[in-house]
Amino acid sequence: MSTQRLIVIGGDAAGMSAAAKVRREDPQREIVVFERSPHTSYSACGMPYLIAGLIDSPERLVARSPEKFREKFNIDARTGHEVLELDPSGQRVRVTNLEQGSTTWEPYDQLLIATGAAAISPTLPGSDSEGIFGLSTLASGIQIQQFMDRQLPRRAVVVGGGYIGLEMAEALVRQGLQVSLVEKGEQVMGTLDPDMGALVSDALREVGVTLYLQESLVGYESANGLVTGVVTDQRTLQADLVIVGLGTRPNTALAAASGIPLGEKGSIRVTPRMQTAAVNVWAAGDCAESFHLISRRPFHIALGTVANKQGTVAGINLSGGYATFPGVVGTAVSKICKYEVARTGLTEREIRELGLLYNTATTKSKTRAGYYPGAGWITVKLLAEQGSGRLLGGQIVGLEGAAKRIDVLATALTAGMTVQQLVDLDLSYAPPFSPVWDPVQTAARQLLP
Amino acid sequence: MSTQRLIVIGGDAAGMSAAAKVRREDPQREIVVFERSPHTSYSACGMPYLIAGLIDSPERLVARSPEKFREKFNIDARTGHEVLELDPSGQRVRVTNLEQGSTTWEPYDQLLIATGAAAISPTLPGSDSEGIFGLSTLASGIQIQQFMDRQLPRRAVVVGGGYIGLEMAEALVRQGLQVSLVEKGEQVMGTLDPDMGALVSDALREVGVTLYLQESLVGYESANGLVTGVVTDQRTLQADLVIVGLGTRPNTALAAASGIPLGEKGSIRVTPRMQTAAVNVWAAGDCAESFHLISRRPFHIALGTVANKQGTVAGINLSGGYATFPGVVGTAVSKICKYEVARTGLTEREIRELGLLYNTATTKSKTRAGYYPGAGWITVKLLAEQGSGRLLGGQIVGLEGAAKRIDVLATALTAGMTVQQLVDLDLSYAPPFSPVWDPVQTAARQLLP
Repeated sequence: MSTQRLIVIGGDAAGMSAAAKVRREDPQREIVVFERSPHTSYSACGMPYLIAGLIDSPERLVARSPEKFREKFNIDARTGHEVLELDPSGQRVRVTNLEQGSTTWEPYDQLLIATGAAAISPTLPGSDSEGIFGLSTLASGIQIQQFMDRQLPRRAVVVGGGYIGLEMAEALVRQGLQVSLVEKGEQVMGTLDPDMGALVSDALREVGVTLYLQESLVGYESANGLVTGVVTDQRTLQADLVIVGLGTRPNTALAAASGIPLGEKGSIRVTPRMQTAAVNVWAAGDCAESFHLISRRPFHIALGTVANKQGTVAGINLSGGYATFPGVVGTAVSKICKYEVARTGLTEREIRELGLLYNTATTKSKTRAGYYPGAGWITVKLLAEQGSGRLLGGQIVGLEGAAKRIDVLATALTAGMTVQQLVDLDLSYAPPFSPVWDPVQTAARQLLP
Repeated sequence: MSTQRLIVIGGDAAGMSAAAKVRREDPQREIVVFERSPHTSYSACGMPYLIAGLIDSPERLVARSPEKFREKFNIDARTGHEVLELDPSGQRVRVTNLEQGSTTWEPYDQLLIATGAAAISPTLPGSDSEGIFGLSTLASGIQIQQFMDRQLPRRAVVVGGGYIGLEMAEALVRQGLQVSLVEKGEQVMGTLDPDMGALVSDALREVGVTLYLQESLVGYESANGLVTGVVTDQRTLQADLVIVGLGTRPNTALAAASGIPLGEKGSIRVTPRMQTAAVNVWAAGDCAESFHLISRRPFHIALGTVANKQGTVAGINLSGGYATFPGVVGTAVSKICKYEVARTGLTEREIRELGLLYNTATTKSKTRAGYYPGAGWITVKLLAEQGSGRLLGGQIVGLEGAAKRIDVLATALTAGMTVQQLVDLDLSYAPPFSPVWDPVQTAARQLLP
């Protein structure tokens, strides 16, 4: 293997997890990474906290710099290099050095596509105005920070009430801006059921965010090239800064153009070992397809945890080992000031789409023993299959200590547990940590026959 | 069923969970509860926090008073009544009204023994001095509080470094006392492996507790009937207050005297439905045996969670339903000031006793993303079977947010997961809650082949 050349396209979580794993397994292997941006291995998830001022410098979000990869791992990490074309039959990629403008064909023995995902940013009237930002790369996070330092915006509009929208709303509230949020759905957090999403909507209002629900983005107003307003189908909101958090889309144009088959939401179809349909071409991370362990269907989710896992699996296989990525249960967590939000498994809508029948229970309890200082509310919603009682999903909204309980549900889901088995679990209890029945068990008890 | 008379001995977690369950299923059933103390359904686990001054009154620890049981649940809860004798063949118990001194035989159709456990308090020279306390009933907690109000002790010695010892040490430190702790083991927290126990010993020292490890209690010194010192096999420690936390022992003398077979550590042997060997006699809670799902052996543990679960199972069966208590994995959690401690499954010693071979990994990581404010250290130790990779146990010591992660391990253990399956789990990640790889997964990764 040692004489073979591995090219990795994309130098963030998946690509660099794979590259580092290959290096550990094979000290001699030639590994070249092409990364369009100036950064490698940064925490995209940390950017809202950078903008919130909770983190003092963008460098703190970088786990490992290109220099570190080159010097410590002997990985030829070339930032500022964009791959323009992929030729699977010729086993080569066409790469441009963005600074110098030069372009070369680079041969590979094995290729890993780890091109990630990009923020969805629809082209609308005024969408080229300055002050409108998506948030997907560290560079975009730094741009927002620089814009804020320069323009001192006072009114911000966040478009989209998903994770990025929530976290950016918190960040801008912390920075003292007046924040409005526009969401086309009935409630924010469309990955929760609307009844639980309503609790998150309440939480946003509680921290001072003005919500405009069931409103759609139509365009922007601007003056002298700077954004001045967000136009919805119902009103115009004044804005000095706009964050567009409408989700992400896998960066797979390169793969698609080379004939590599795509799957869910345009992500690259892969085997459990992370191999694409093209010989010697692998894919991992936000650009690659995943599998949903509860719906038993192909699934796509752009998350750092999944990218790290898929990258590690690809790295093991690329170095002659054997590993598979079994899939996900759709776990996610977020925070908006003091409020915590988490979900795993399927929502009611997703369950109905599968044609399953289900029962649901929602209980409000406490994060600690009721008498213990700092006990806060926690609302847990569980969904379980009718008849079998098999857990299908869980959602949590609450105060400090609430959200991480989702991991018990994610583990129970993965194991195929029933609500009875959840009730029977020997979970930890002491007054500073939990009521005697953990809140997830209190909800499960409501679903017992 | 409605005409039958259910007698419950013991009015705390197990007894009252059962009684309440029976009442919900059968509104007509005659239910009599005899409780020796003045209290029902209180949180024994909350007493250290009462003594710490974190909770303003003992009443806050009472979930449901005898009056509430009588009035709201129509349960004849008789506090101040001690059962002296049990006659299974005659289906009756001899009960004394502690206030009046009168004694009667009370017939039952079904009996539930829920007599709990008592603090182990060896009779030693000076052990009858005032100022020496165990901690098992709410009454004992109130006595400590009254003693402290009256005597204003300045130097406290805690004997025993288990959960109660730890939590009482925190309580007394919070109250401004000079606290010493005597433990006969190599480290405190003998339910952890010594290497993890050492972290807890360090934590205790850090919060100002003076530790005397590998020292045994020999007796007490006193003056005018008041304790003045604790004598160990190596020294005498001055003390105005002594807390004896040497564990608990099931209260099963009554059952044993009536010929009901006992099991592990003198707890009452029960079926999975919580039935004893005597006809129509059931047992639940700290006095009853449990089953360890990992060692596959009978087990005894005195914990509120187990008592509630066993009580509920007994209640379902006592009202004509069908339920079983599958067992425990030995999960426990505790807190000493800012330090959190948790364990589940088997320790190295317990694994060796079963003749299993195992691997172990201990990793130190962070409770949140490293760059996120408030990220604290967390040390996770995992134990897994050689060959199969099956998880056998886990231990956690760390700062805020560390301990409740034990629940993921408890769930994975119950499901029989391997370390690979633990690594593959879709656990939640966002910078305020976790690094990308949750600390339990970081430890599991070290155990992969």
